Amino acid sequence: MPKEIERKFLVANDLWRAQVLRKVNLRDGLVAVEDGRKVRIRFYDDRATLTVKGKRIGISRDEFEYEIPANDARIMLEQHCDSAILEKTRHHLMADGQEWVVDEYHGLLEGVVLAEIELQSEDAAISSPPWLGEEVTGNDDYRKTNMVRARVAS
Amino acid sequence: MPKEIERKFLVANDLWRAQVLRKVNLRDGLVAVEDGRKVRIRFYDDRATLTVKGKRIGISRDEFEYEIPANDARIMLEQHCDSAILEKTRHHLMADGQEWVVDEYHGLLEGVVLAEIELQSEDAAISSPPWLGEEVTGNDDYRKTNMVRARVAS
Repeated sequence: MPKEIERKFLVANDLWRAQVLRKVNLRDGLVAVEDGRKVRIRFYDDRATLTVKGKRIGISRDEFEYEIPANDARIMLEQHCDSAILEKTRHHLMADGQEWVVDEYHGLLEGVVLAEIELQSEDAAISSPPWLGEEVTGNDDYRKTNMVRARVAS
Repeated sequence: MPKEIERKFLVANDLWRAQVLRKVNLRDGLVAVEDGRKVRIRFYDDRATLTVKGKRIGISRDEFEYEIPANDARIMLEQHCDSAILEKTRHHLMADGQEWVVDEYHGLLEGVVLAEIELQSEDAAISSPPWLGEEVTGNDDYRKTNMVRARVAS
């Protein structure tokens, strides 16, 4: 079963930039949220997907992602999503043999930078690269919907 | 753009059964509903789809349906949908050169039978086959969510 187990951190400095292997521009729109489940449209550069995420249990959640025609995705993003479309640059990098992504948000969340690592199990070990900041896994302030709400309110 | 324009009727009698060309068993689960948009998992016999329906405007709505692996769909239906899974037999038939579907519900909505015709435009003409009952297009009592609510409450 597809499952997503990930831990999320702030970054302490810009040293991660030297380790970037590739980057991709993401645009996310939320079609619907219900009972902790989320349905999302996402563009990875020009490729588009439709994703269903199950309710989060601990730090795990089921995730089902399907590639769909970009034209359908564009219509859904413009007409059938929440008005808050999120844009970010996702940087893929390796640190101590582990794959990380660092997301730099744009637009409404400009300035937010979060590092994430996807794990095979909830208790998998991770290293501490010199750019790694405070862990915010499970911290509600760093959920996307709450970050957007905070910015809109400020 | 994919669009769904349809009119919905009760049936006045069983004469439609003689005109059935083929039938398929449908199982529907609702992943999420928000602001008039709906995300649904549906099995057509053993084939599965994930569908996003836009907000209804008049009798039209955008509809985006994608075939997905049956195993993913089974997990979503069992673990990531509303508990009310709807089952119905969909009968396809021709009447006066026009295609109709007649849905016979099972389980929670046993006894409900609804005829639907999909149209190219909102003002397209339709014939009146002898089994056609009262039109319920736009009648809130015959929206699936409300039919389920009424049965659960009774």
